[in-house]
Amino acid sequence: MGNKLTERNKDYSKWYNELVVQADLAENSAVRGCMVIKPYGYAIWEKMQAELDAKFKETGHQNAYFPLFVPKSLFEAEEKNAEGFAKECAVVTHYRLKTDPEDKSKLIVDPEAKLEEELVVRPTSEAIIWNTYKGWIQSYRDLPILINQWANVVRWEMRTRLFLRTAEFLWQEGHTAHASKGEALAEAKQMNNIYANFLENFMAIPVVQGLKSESERFAGAEETFCIEALMQDGKALQAGTSHFLGQNFAKAFDVKYASKEGKLEHVWATSWGVSTRLMGALIMTHSDDKGLVLPPKLAPHQVVIVPIYKGEEQLMEISETANELAAELREAGISVKYDNRDTHKPGWKFAQYELQGVPLRIAIGPKDLEKGTVELARRDTLTKEFVNQSEIVGKVKGLMVEIQDTLFQKALDYRSEHTTKVDTFEEFKNVLKTKGGFISAHWDGTIETETKIKELTKATIRCIPLEADKEDGKCVFSGNPSSQRVLFAKAY
Amino acid sequence: MGNKLTERNKDYSKWYNELVVQADLAENSAVRGCMVIKPYGYAIWEKMQAELDAKFKETGHQNAYFPLFVPKSLFEAEEKNAEGFAKECAVVTHYRLKTDPEDKSKLIVDPEAKLEEELVVRPTSEAIIWNTYKGWIQSYRDLPILINQWANVVRWEMRTRLFLRTAEFLWQEGHTAHASKGEALAEAKQMNNIYANFLENFMAIPVVQGLKSESERFAGAEETFCIEALMQDGKALQAGTSHFLGQNFAKAFDVKYASKEGKLEHVWATSWGVSTRLMGALIMTHSDDKGLVLPPKLAPHQVVIVPIYKGEEQLMEISETANELAAELREAGISVKYDNRDTHKPGWKFAQYELQGVPLRIAIGPKDLEKGTVELARRDTLTKEFVNQSEIVGKVKGLMVEIQDTLFQKALDYRSEHTTKVDTFEEFKNVLKTKGGFISAHWDGTIETETKIKELTKATIRCIPLEADKEDGKCVFSGNPSSQRVLFAKAY
Repeated sequence: MGNKLTERNKDYSKWYNELVVQADLAENSAVRGCMVIKPYGYAIWEKMQAELDAKFKETGHQNAYFPLFVPKSLFEAEEKNAEGFAKECAVVTHYRLKTDPEDKSKLIVDPEAKLEEELVVRPTSEAIIWNTYKGWIQSYRDLPILINQWANVVRWEMRTRLFLRTAEFLWQEGHTAHASKGEALAEAKQMNNIYANFLENFMAIPVVQGLKSESERFAGAEETFCIEALMQDGKALQAGTSHFLGQNFAKAFDVKYASKEGKLEHVWATSWGVSTRLMGALIMTHSDDKGLVLPPKLAPHQVVIVPIYKGEEQLMEISETANELAAELREAGISVKYDNRDTHKPGWKFAQYELQGVPLRIAIGPKDLEKGTVELARRDTLTKEFVNQSEIVGKVKGLMVEIQDTLFQKALDYRSEHTTKVDTFEEFKNVLKTKGGFISAHWDGTIETETKIKELTKATIRCIPLEADKEDGKCVFSGNPSSQRVLFAKAY
Repeated sequence: MGNKLTERNKDYSKWYNELVVQADLAENSAVRGCMVIKPYGYAIWEKMQAELDAKFKETGHQNAYFPLFVPKSLFEAEEKNAEGFAKECAVVTHYRLKTDPEDKSKLIVDPEAKLEEELVVRPTSEAIIWNTYKGWIQSYRDLPILINQWANVVRWEMRTRLFLRTAEFLWQEGHTAHASKGEALAEAKQMNNIYANFLENFMAIPVVQGLKSESERFAGAEETFCIEALMQDGKALQAGTSHFLGQNFAKAFDVKYASKEGKLEHVWATSWGVSTRLMGALIMTHSDDKGLVLPPKLAPHQVVIVPIYKGEEQLMEISETANELAAELREAGISVKYDNRDTHKPGWKFAQYELQGVPLRIAIGPKDLEKGTVELARRDTLTKEFVNQSEIVGKVKGLMVEIQDTLFQKALDYRSEHTTKVDTFEEFKNVLKTKGGFISAHWDGTIETETKIKELTKATIRCIPLEADKEDGKCVFSGNPSSQRVLFAKAY
């Protein structure tokens, strides 16, 4: 276990970096900007994957796998998409290394093994997938195609941070093909909704669903739906996006279908994705100065049992009770770890599991055996109580629900307190400076205003909320008329 | 659905390629040697993943994720490993594309975005992982490390075939670190054993467990355990390998631990993997001239129900019964697809599900409604019978077990018939030419003999079986003394 974390109010960014490493979630690797996701961090990611994968399948999607590489000629086919990603893509140019003639212990790129056409390591897979769909789609009978892929992607970012922005990251990308605009739009909305429900009900993170402004849209999309969450430092985080791609990719790759009426028409598309960035959202929404705080639905271990003992004999007695309790809890569907390692002291274990955000800790000592009790400690509130062993299963089951709800409510309260309606630009700047968070303000709908506000304040339009009431007003910057408030914030 | 498949005895290789594409398992992509794994093929791979992942976790392994890229300086650190993979690795040299000044619609590699150090796309991850383990291991308390990774890897093969040999493939790679040689060896054996059990009990593929000869070992391993299966054309297929890596990587990356006695010692290592190549083994073990044959434990749909009807009203009546049966079967843990699409005729559906290897097909027509029966067709034996609807659940449950067993027994019989003991080189060549399969023969243990036999016959030593009786004899080629028979075969 590492040292005490830097406190959030001293240096939020440092706190985050220390927490990620010390809680064994991830670390930087020898490859610039690429991370190693450690077993504990990966176990949380697996929980996210399992839940999302089930939701995708329930809504008729199937998984498939497409190549890691995109030939340059395909990559450049959809112009806006290519332009958007060209600046940050890793390019394979050779397919062989050979021994360095000047130093036999070294390898060099073999100049004779140059590829005829360079291969881009996928930053996203629209190009390779739509080139494939071309061969799959002839008639309306072949539609819709509802496919998802779990994969790694690479975007050569210059400034990286564990989970939040890494050169390689893991994600899922859905790519669907439809016979009509309406169906594709409904799909894009549906998937954004699935993301929102997942974040709120599973990760206990409240989100705002909305549309991106034109300048924040995915390169190649006609409309980008998104979910935006608010972190504890008042900055927003884009947690997932779902794009209505119109017929852009179908046109770039010439994908047409024969309709029921026998007409040849271009196919309509969506794509949607969430990534390991969600780990960053998770950490920055719930955690505290003692470390990670996990909602029970995402915790690899929901309960950890720690024995407090002196000597082998006492450990055996305690273990008997601990194993019985663990068995009862598992029977009730709770995941339990019994940590009876003799290499570490109870105090060390307490601190470690606090750091790693295990929702409940049960400690059992010799006095507990006498009294038939255990000490139950709750990670989110840092409170403790003694509970009769006979009541532990019911108690723990109840707390799993209660903790999940409490975390969501706490995050929701934070967001409510940090969402401010403003009507003047002075107020806008002032709120941004003093408390941060979401700023709900009128905007005239122009890129010029958006750009100017960004230049002056670093705040961007996070989204045009889907559920906001229409309300006539004046743009907070230009004073021109506006029909709806949008959400501004500084963002990750 | 495609055309009739080429028959196996006419052109086995063509049959295989046609089957993979027509059964919707995979197809070639726009990227040389890289495949697209289609949803049906991927669903089978997911079944394999789920079962293997559970077995890994039961034996104490955890999943993690390491970078896709290996900096050249790390790649070359373990000399033999580097030498083994240098000839076939994709190399990233640049991190940006830019608009072609001569044609604004094209992109070119930006010469100003050349990486200081080239990055190898991982062909296997020992180098990047052992460089990471260096930071994780200080004392015996940090050991063992038992980690698995599900990932894509790239090996630039010149001759590729769907699933069997592709430039990019999906796999899992286990990488473990231990305090003693004995523990590492036991781990390598254990994992090979898990692979063997998985192939036999889940994929219904009999395998021989053995050791690789020195020349067939993994580059950088001290000992390679393997499982070898026999395909229907008499060629062997290496289905999985588990390597005892000794201290080679610990030495290359300077990974030492302080023992209980306080001595600094190099760590012992294993690595082990199976890949999407298993899809090829699956296809070539069980399938026939009508298409894929799937063991029930791997079938995405174990039962398909096809209604035989004229008109909407009849379909509704049949659907009522079909949905009831489907619900009962699902209740009993059977995965069922009810295909009531009106876009395809029953005959087309029958052929399609035969091609895709669905173990059982249930057809329900108007006469079945009268009589309370269904027609039950078995994919592996191509037999049909009428079964009372009231008996269908018991019948299907029984057949799931029976089909799984039958497929295994059939493959085992084939292997027994195609494993031949030979004692002269004439016989060796003759058997290889006339019936193929495994040849059990004495070998003098030298690379010279092994190489010579390979040159003359194209047969290689598939393995030195773990369970063979020691038996004194004379090398089938050199006549020199030998203490054990080994298995030769032509191989994929």
